[in-house]
Amino acid sequence: MAELVGNLLVAQSGGPTSVINASVAGVITEAGKHECIEEIYGGLNGILGILNEDLIDLNDEKDRAIKGMVYTPAAALGTCRYKIDFKKKPEPAAQDMDRLFEVFKAHNIRFFFYAGGNDSQDTSHKIHEEAVKRGYDLRVIGVPKTIDNDLPHTDSCPGYGSAIKYCAVTAMEVGIDVGSMATDDGSCCIIEVMGRSAGWIAAGTVLAKRGEPANPPHLILLPEIQYNVDAILAKVKETVAAYKYCIMVVGEGIRDDKGEEIGVDKTRLDAFGHPVLSGAAECIAEFIQGKLNTKTRTVKLGYAQRAAAHFASAIDAKNAFACGEAAVKAAAEGKSGFMVKIVREYVPDEKGGQTVKWSTGLQPLADIANVEHFVPRDWVSEDGFLPNEKFVEYARPLIEGEVKPVMEGGLPKYSVLEKSRVEKTLPARA
Amino acid sequence: MAELVGNLLVAQSGGPTSVINASVAGVITEAGKHECIEEIYGGLNGILGILNEDLIDLNDEKDRAIKGMVYTPAAALGTCRYKIDFKKKPEPAAQDMDRLFEVFKAHNIRFFFYAGGNDSQDTSHKIHEEAVKRGYDLRVIGVPKTIDNDLPHTDSCPGYGSAIKYCAVTAMEVGIDVGSMATDDGSCCIIEVMGRSAGWIAAGTVLAKRGEPANPPHLILLPEIQYNVDAILAKVKETVAAYKYCIMVVGEGIRDDKGEEIGVDKTRLDAFGHPVLSGAAECIAEFIQGKLNTKTRTVKLGYAQRAAAHFASAIDAKNAFACGEAAVKAAAEGKSGFMVKIVREYVPDEKGGQTVKWSTGLQPLADIANVEHFVPRDWVSEDGFLPNEKFVEYARPLIEGEVKPVMEGGLPKYSVLEKSRVEKTLPARA
Repeated sequence: MAELVGNLLVAQSGGPTSVINASVAGVITEAGKHECIEEIYGGLNGILGILNEDLIDLNDEKDRAIKGMVYTPAAALGTCRYKIDFKKKPEPAAQDMDRLFEVFKAHNIRFFFYAGGNDSQDTSHKIHEEAVKRGYDLRVIGVPKTIDNDLPHTDSCPGYGSAIKYCAVTAMEVGIDVGSMATDDGSCCIIEVMGRSAGWIAAGTVLAKRGEPANPPHLILLPEIQYNVDAILAKVKETVAAYKYCIMVVGEGIRDDKGEEIGVDKTRLDAFGHPVLSGAAECIAEFIQGKLNTKTRTVKLGYAQRAAAHFASAIDAKNAFACGEAAVKAAAEGKSGFMVKIVREYVPDEKGGQTVKWSTGLQPLADIANVEHFVPRDWVSEDGFLPNEKFVEYARPLIEGEVKPVMEGGLPKYSVLEKSRVEKTLPARA
Repeated sequence: MAELVGNLLVAQSGGPTSVINASVAGVITEAGKHECIEEIYGGLNGILGILNEDLIDLNDEKDRAIKGMVYTPAAALGTCRYKIDFKKKPEPAAQDMDRLFEVFKAHNIRFFFYAGGNDSQDTSHKIHEEAVKRGYDLRVIGVPKTIDNDLPHTDSCPGYGSAIKYCAVTAMEVGIDVGSMATDDGSCCIIEVMGRSAGWIAAGTVLAKRGEPANPPHLILLPEIQYNVDAILAKVKETVAAYKYCIMVVGEGIRDDKGEEIGVDKTRLDAFGHPVLSGAAECIAEFIQGKLNTKTRTVKLGYAQRAAAHFASAIDAKNAFACGEAAVKAAAEGKSGFMVKIVREYVPDEKGGQTVKWSTGLQPLADIANVEHFVPRDWVSEDGFLPNEKFVEYARPLIEGEVKPVMEGGLPKYSVLEKSRVEKTLPARA
């Protein structure tokens, strides 16, 4: 096969993470090592920007800015929730696909990397298939990203380790605070974290316990498990009786024993048609105050948990960077239609124990798209209220080490790209 | 005057902060240098524990644990919201005061330090006056503490710098995240921070802007100022039109132009009889979504903002420690009835600019008790939506430097006291 030579395009999609820019930095850094890659372009705001021919020249960025991306949260290229939806909207989807390949041809894009979660891997898969169908020589590699950690086949998703490191330190700190105020009256605090259907983030806060039952959080509720509200209240009562306080972490999408989401407002829908959830913690707090008469406060971390790069995991950032590098290597080797996955291997350490050796692998995009990976039931206690040792063994290595952002005047100095625009050559999108 | 010799008692009160333990570490460290101080005791859970004769021997703690208190959040000695309230409950208050002096006498307490906010300084003041009245030789010094920063006469309150450093980094990170997702539809995020009547914490997030109008947060609403809801909506609309997104920070106690608290639930009261506020952000979010049709999400930091020692301000921790030291020095010099205050002085630096030199002073407790210090009106823009340069000049030095907690397995290893109990000698409290 004659070597493919052309330009590279990288874009980001969906909700950002603390380390999604590290993956882009990995792509840019590795791309510079391959002669088959000529220009390195970024697509602004994901697929949406590419459709609008909004491309920037990443070779024009300062080296300092690219290096700073490793510890800069959010999507430095901009992101979107736009989806090319062949199922629900076949006609606009077909038009989008035509336009996409016009843009690819106009700018001789031959290497395309898309960092995102389930929906974005689905998009990458469709683009790969279209390229084959159209006979357009294109290498498409998906780069995993999501704090939700719900992509299958990869050990974990870049962004997840940082999210749980931040959520765990928050549960730890809020726990010490509430514990230090606990008098005989007892008090409770509920921390609501993201996780619409998978409970990986909520489960990750178990690391704050360090194996001590008395340490917070005392109860962790996952969307995968259905809970009887009276059983929740009984657990809270038991915990307050034992420790005078109770810290509970809930995933936003937790459900009651009828399968109904707790505290959901079904009248509001997001861009993908999911109901907007915001009330799980508030809803349970009302029950505890009303039925147990125990003072209860809530914390809702919201977007902070996916953007808290000031306390990101060094391992997570390293794996995110490695995923970007591996994507480019695979494409340069002629591969297409894969997602990079993170691979964990346990190897003996110097102290006679074992340590984790991280590497990457490739998985066909066809295996990934729209498959959700959940917390295994046997990684959670029988009563469903706490992840167990199996989960801890899995999650602990993901939060190791601290990213060190450059600080200025007491706050991180995050990287900002100059975004030098690539000249448009096509008529505006219809 | 013959030198007073006896035992020291230190206790913590009210809502904890990230650095209140640094003040206790300052007390303990300085106490070791004075021969007039024999035993160093800690009172568990503030006044409430002292009334129950729950004292611990701080000389029994490991040196490592005391040193670790500098970066350990929450109240290591435990705290309470219990108030000796002569106004509302004169009889129980008089009984409490009798009991307190019984405990003092039983353990030869001659040096008493109470770290807390307005209510606690009031308690310290009353104890000082009672000691004089009763002819019991006691040195009482208040140590300032509160993330609310609402104590008068002190430049700032230990705990405040760390709270705004954390809230500012959160506003910065959430802002970059939301900004990176902003498409033509626009979106908004409202971050709710503590501050029932004083807006110091909300105001402090202005530091995330670094002087750039385009940087988040774009709007900051303070409880000191009344806001017309339509004017808020107009500002949001204007901001989204300019930047495609809007980050708003609100103090929990913000009020509308009728003086009504926005989103307050008057049916719930806390231990001091204040209404429980939890809804300011949610309430405004509903308005924005309903009237502007702009996607709006909320973040409620809650207890996390006063406990986030993983990102505490080094200057704040240093000042907190210095307040503890200064309290002991003052008492050893024979002073009583004062609160330590933080003093700021601008001195020329090497680069021809100026730098802040921090020291401490003393203020009579009579001047402090129950006086609330608010954000000056002329430190906020005329329209009330952003703190101005005067505020920034004040707040910027308070967030400088980072506390470095010892890390273990990716999370801070906070200090835990062994709490070796001092033997009780009195009958149990009635």
